[in-house]
Amino acid sequence: MRGKLIVCDGSNGAGKSTVLEHIKDHLNSKNIEFISTREPGGTEVGEKIREILLDKSYSNMCSTTELMLFAAARAQHIHEKILPALEKGIHVISDRFESATVSFQQYGRGLPSQIVDQLNDLALGDFRPDMTIVLDLDPVVGLERVRSRGEGLDRMEEVDIEFLERARQGYLEQAKSYPERFTVIDATQSLENVVEEALATIDKQI
Amino acid sequence: MRGKLIVCDGSNGAGKSTVLEHIKDHLNSKNIEFISTREPGGTEVGEKIREILLDKSYSNMCSTTELMLFAAARAQHIHEKILPALEKGIHVISDRFESATVSFQQYGRGLPSQIVDQLNDLALGDFRPDMTIVLDLDPVVGLERVRSRGEGLDRMEEVDIEFLERARQGYLEQAKSYPERFTVIDATQSLENVVEEALATIDKQI
Repeated sequence: MRGKLIVCDGSNGAGKSTVLEHIKDHLNSKNIEFISTREPGGTEVGEKIREILLDKSYSNMCSTTELMLFAAARAQHIHEKILPALEKGIHVISDRFESATVSFQQYGRGLPSQIVDQLNDLALGDFRPDMTIVLDLDPVVGLERVRSRGEGLDRMEEVDIEFLERARQGYLEQAKSYPERFTVIDATQSLENVVEEALATIDKQI
Repeated sequence: MRGKLIVCDGSNGAGKSTVLEHIKDHLNSKNIEFISTREPGGTEVGEKIREILLDKSYSNMCSTTELMLFAAARAQHIHEKILPALEKGIHVISDRFESATVSFQQYGRGLPSQIVDQLNDLALGDFRPDMTIVLDLDPVVGLERVRSRGEGLDRMEEVDIEFLERARQGYLEQAKSYPERFTVIDATQSLENVVEEALATIDKQI
């Protein structure tokens, strides 16, 4: 049987990393074979592209370049790592995927949907994740959480609240358009509840 | 008056760098204001992308990723460096440009023309160089010249002769399709003659 690609995505500071750790523990405890990966990145070339995308010294990077770099990393990711795993029946858990490009580059940066779709289609063909879990949170709260961790912000986090508001809207719109492959979880709930909802979604898929 | 973008492109080992040096000396001697640049690269982000593209350790880079990386660097190049110069009336001389992507990624790698055009259009809009000088050479001779310099080959040069034959054909086809903005120079001639033809082309443009 073919593996499934499950993506965890959503607002910065919504608890993605923690939820991903719980998903991995859960799958391990059930002896389910999977690999975990992330975007941008996931391959050697992709991680190198990630470095460019997150490097704050490139504050003048134009939106089209940004979009193409995400797509370039994604094309390598799907070709080199994700499809080969799925074909062997191994599930793939990814921290962000094409949904993030729709949210951040289309809704956030304001690139036309036609162009963003073109790049996602070029990278992925007609392949899309089986399920994308969106952790939904008011970006004001999310950014506060990111800051309280004491980590510096990367180039993609050094944006204004309006940008993050638009990106959040992008996730909600995608979930509305494709309810069969998106699940939105309210990330203002207790972490326990967020994790519980995420694992229930995973159990329905895998 | 708006500046012009003149590109020097063509087969590896055909003498591009030498011809470019002569073009620069020529323009300097005529006190013509210009900047010289190169692809992939030309900007800080672009040079970082160039490092990835030429790095031999990424021998498994897929063609779509390669195409997108060239386009990503090009979008930044035109936006940050080329158009601002041209708008100030400063001419731009570039070592390779979009013609190389058509030759190497479309004719060489075999990517569909529709996809290559899409990416070039996304990067450039309807902007194209005013003139592209193609130094044409049998790739067997060209590769021999590159090797005789004693330099190591980069990722884009570590290809088979058939690939380079197809790329050469790509240059000739482009020149046939757009005779008003391509000039082909036979690079088997003496360097003196090649330079003379190149400078004559420049003088007609600038």
